[in-house]
Parts: sequence; C-alpha cells; structure tokens
Amino acid sequence: MLEFDLIARIRQRAAARADVVLGIGDDCALLAPAPGMQLAVTMDTLNESVHFPPETAPYDIGWKSLAVNLSDLAAMGAQPAWCTLSLSLPDARAEFIDGFSDGFLALAQQHGFALVGGDTTRGPLSISVTAQGLIEPGQALRRDGANVGDAIWVSGTLGDAAAALQQWQAGMPMHPALRKRLDRPTPRVALGRALRGLATACIDISDGLLADLSHICRASGVGARIDAEALPASDALCAVVAKDARARLQASGGDDYELCFTVSQGKSEAVLALAEKLDLPLTCVGQIQEGSALQCVGMGLDPVALGYQHFA
Amino acid sequence: MLEFDLIARIRQRAAARADVVLGIGDDCALLAPAPGMQLAVTMDTLNESVHFPPETAPYDIGWKSLAVNLSDLAAMGAQPAWCTLSLSLPDARAEFIDGFSDGFLALAQQHGFALVGGDTTRGPLSISVTAQGLIEPGQALRRDGANVGDAIWVSGTLGDAAAALQQWQAGMPMHPALRKRLDRPTPRVALGRALRGLATACIDISDGLLADLSHICRASGVGARIDAEALPASDALCAVVAKDARARLQASGGDDYELCFTVSQGKSEAVLALAEKLDLPLTCVGQIQEGSALQCVGMGLDPVALGYQHFA
Repeated sequence: MLEFDLIARIRQRAAARADVVLGIGDDCALLAPAPGMQLAVTMDTLNESVHFPPETAPYDIGWKSLAVNLSDLAAMGAQPAWCTLSLSLPDARAEFIDGFSDGFLALAQQHGFALVGGDTTRGPLSISVTAQGLIEPGQALRRDGANVGDAIWVSGTLGDAAAALQQWQAGMPMHPALRKRLDRPTPRVALGRALRGLATACIDISDGLLADLSHICRASGVGARIDAEALPASDALCAVVAKDARARLQASGGDDYELCFTVSQGKSEAVLALAEKLDLPLTCVGQIQEGSALQCVGMGLDPVALGYQHFA
Repeated sequence: MLEFDLIARIRQRAAARADVVLGIGDDCALLAPAPGMQLAVTMDTLNESVHFPPETAPYDIGWKSLAVNLSDLAAMGAQPAWCTLSLSLPDARAEFIDGFSDGFLALAQQHGFALVGGDTTRGPLSISVTAQGLIEPGQALRRDGANVGDAIWVSGTLGDAAAALQQWQAGMPMHPALRKRLDRPTPRVALGRALRGLATACIDISDGLLADLSHICRASGVGARIDAEALPASDALCAVVAKDARARLQASGGDDYELCFTVSQGKSEAVLALAEKLDLPLTCVGQIQEGSALQCVGMGLDPVALGYQHFA
C-alpha cells in the first residue's frame, strides 16, 4: 500500500465539523476557531513496548493513542475540537491500519473530534497525536490554583491499569476488566467541562496519583495529604490484588486517566451532585496542606513512591 | 537525567509570545489566536535512518525537524505562531538534548515561533512536530487553485539535497554546500506570505518537484508541462553532478523545501519584483495545461519519475 492510499483510507473516515475549513489533503489543515475562545493544545506519543505491549490489538492502540490526549484536554476543562495524527509503521499492513482507524475514529466520534491532518512514515511503531480543544478565556483548569484546605478528589477507580500491566509483566493472563482499563481508558471529558468554575486545580492521572498530584503541589506552592484507605478500588482490583499491594498500585500506578482535582472547603455537595449527574464515582481522598510535603497516610505506604518516570 | 529535567531544559529556552496564555508545564498549553484569523496546522515526523542519516549532528536534526513543518506553513502562506514537539529518545544524553535544542530553537527564533508543549518518551530516535500558523480567512495558498495557462514557478535551486543524499548513500563524503541544504533546509516563510493574493496554488517541494506538482494537478483538475532545461541548479550541484543526472535529481529529488507555485498569465513581472525584494531566485519552469498528464520535456527525462513515496 502506498503512503497516499494509506492517507486516503483514513481520510475517508474522518468526521466533519463546520469549523474545519480545509481538512486532510493539503500542506496544512485550515481551522476557524469560534470567536473569543482560547485553544488548549496537547501532544502525546505512544511507542510500542514502552507504552503498550507488542501484542496489543490495533483497535486498542488507536483508541488509547487518542484517549491519552483527550484526557489532557479533559484535565483543562476544554471541549475537544481537532487533532492531527502521525503514524510511524514498519510496514503498511491494511489489517493494522483498519483496526487502528476503527479504534481511533470510534473514540473521536464519541467526542465530535475531527482528524484534520498528520503524517505517515516508515519506522518503528509509534503514534503521535496533537489534540486541540476550545476553552473560554479564564476558565481553564490549571495546576496552579490549589489552596491550603482544599479537598482532593479523584474520579472513577484507581489502580486497575497498573494491575493489568503488572499481570502482563509477570507473564500472567490479564483480568479482562483490568485489561480493558489499560487498553481503552475513558477520557473524562464531560467531568472536565463540568469542573469549570468548581475545581481550583486539576490534572489527569497518567503517571500515578502521587506523581501527578505532586505537579499540582509544586505549581500551586502547597503540600498534600492523601488517605490511602480512601482510594477508590474497583471490584476487579479487589478480587485480584491483596489489600496491601492494592494501595500501592492505587497511589503510584499510572495509566488510569482519571482526573485528580481540588475543590474549596464547603463545595463537597456540589461535587457529589456532579457525580450523580454524570453517573461517575467521585471520591474525596485527601486535603491540600501548607508546606511542600506530599504525605500518604495509612496502609503503610512509602510516601516517596512518586510514580513512573521515563529515563529514571 | 529525569524526564522532567529534560522538559525543564527545553522549557527555559523557549521563546515568549504575547498570545501564549500558558506555555510548557500544564496538561495543555493555552493559546489566544488573534481575532478573525484562521489556523493553519501541520504535523511532520522525522525518524532516524529514514529521514536523516544516523550520523547527522543533533543541531541539524533539531533544525530540520522544525524546518519541514515551517515549510508547510510557508506553502499555505501562514504566519508561524506556535509549535509542540514530541521527542522519542533511546536515552537522555544531555549532549544530544543541548545540540538538538540549539538547532530547533535557533530556527524558531528566526520566525518568532513559540514552543508551547509536547512530550518526551523513551523509544527509537524520532521527532514529531506540530506547527500552527495564523492566516487571514480566504487568503491561504491551497493546492486546488491552479488554472490552465498559469505559469509554474519554483524558488531557489533544486536537487541539492538529493545530490547530498546520493553521495551519502554511495559512501562518498558529502559536498559541504549540498550537505547544508540537506541538513538545514530554509523554509520559505517570507515568500509564502508574499504570495498571498498572487499565487493561484502552492506546495512545498519535499518529495520532489514532479511528485509535489502532481498533487497540485490532481487537486486542481489540470495537467502540467515542465521544461527540464529551465530547472534552476546551484553552482555546487553543477560542479558535482553531470548534466543528465542533474536534471533527474532536480525533477524528482526530494528534501529541498523550496516552494512550487502557480501564477496567472501576465503576472511574471510581479513575481520577478518579489524575487528581487526577497533576494531569492524565482524561476518559471513550466505551464499548467488541460488534461491530467504531467509532462517533463527536455533532458530525456522519464515523465513518470514521480518522486519518493514511503511504503512504495
């Protein structure tokens, strides 16, 4: 398959949006942002064997490569708009392209997200996506707005993806429910939008709760205390992992793509009402404190378990 | 070096722009496009051994990875604004990062271009850049506007980068002037801006003149005739490559990143005045014709030599 056939294959399935003046097929895409809106821009790359096991299904690779970027838009409270995709492939198998496109475009459609351009090259399997969203000026959920006394909340459950990865690394079959969380994370876009004007700071959990919360603490000039006993766990995680090991996965395991956000004292009822409206568990797991220390109390956790770092 | 040190190293050297509300360091960058302007967005990836020889200097890799994207903005007539960078590295050597950043940021500064975000990951050496420019509505230089009778022009000289690559592939030392064109292409941003309202269609020459011109022909529903004798050659190319081989390199060699554009009959003087103003040779090399054929006359060239395709 030639490069141009590959592009045509993806192009004919990309969604249309009224603000896309010119989509795939020229030197650049042309976009018309809604008047008065700001842009939120993020870029993430997934490499085979680093970010996903080689046997991951093409559908899931496509899904996840978009999901991790949508998750960054969600963490800013932005409305997804457009993305570009660069796909490096060792060879151009139609089977891979079709599966990958199915997963990528299925998630894009859920969010009215338009693929407007990109690149296809020969090379080791690698996927880069740049995602753009629209956000009202002054409304973005940044990392630097947390205040002493704010409650720390997380969405969904934590540790599922890390547990699946641990099973895979141990050569064990992955639990289906855990594996689904690793392969097809759910970007919390609706939650991010709803947190505008409510959360004081927000981040998505990609490297692990403590690692990602530490970015909020550093940017906001505050410390935090997490109660390990309060961390929300799925039934699947509880069935597979013993309590002690579980808390560690929940506090420092990555790849969940839930949101961690801070809310002023006295706003708990608004958060709980939001959980009901979105049918998504939201759990208070700690509090912002003075200082710069990140403490994790209960369950005998080492407080310096600060999550996964590339090049560590 | 940890991932976050690497990001900090690049971050502290990124240029500032008034329209960057929030740069590197949060889940997304926040940007405020000038009111009424459209966005031109492009994304290109360079992989080691595919897009550049492994012994390429880090400075040149940084320069080129940005240059190929600026060239796409130039081909649309857009004003460079912001970019994001994803860097996959097998290891995080400070030496590579510094050289790469020097080249990348030197070119960015020339164009007032701000690096606002991105990603660093472990993996085979690969660089993805997404570039954004601003363009007045209706002013973009698209591929689909060429008309029968339009003159076909190219900027600069053609074939230099391909000649350097050929020398490298043959195990010969590369001629310094030719190598510079391969390693540090000059995106024709000022030319692209100046062609708004003058060119009927435009594309940058990345895959080779005939291959790239064929995109204009297909998008515009026209054919073209190129006069191989008219193709502009540098002194270095003439010194190194015999006349017959030269024409082939000029017509089908890639990586020059000059612009190929079409202009209505009777506008030659405006183009020549522009060449003088920009101190950049602009050469008429053929004409748009009826039909869909792409002919290349003179020098005994095979007219189906349509340039480099990935996965071919």
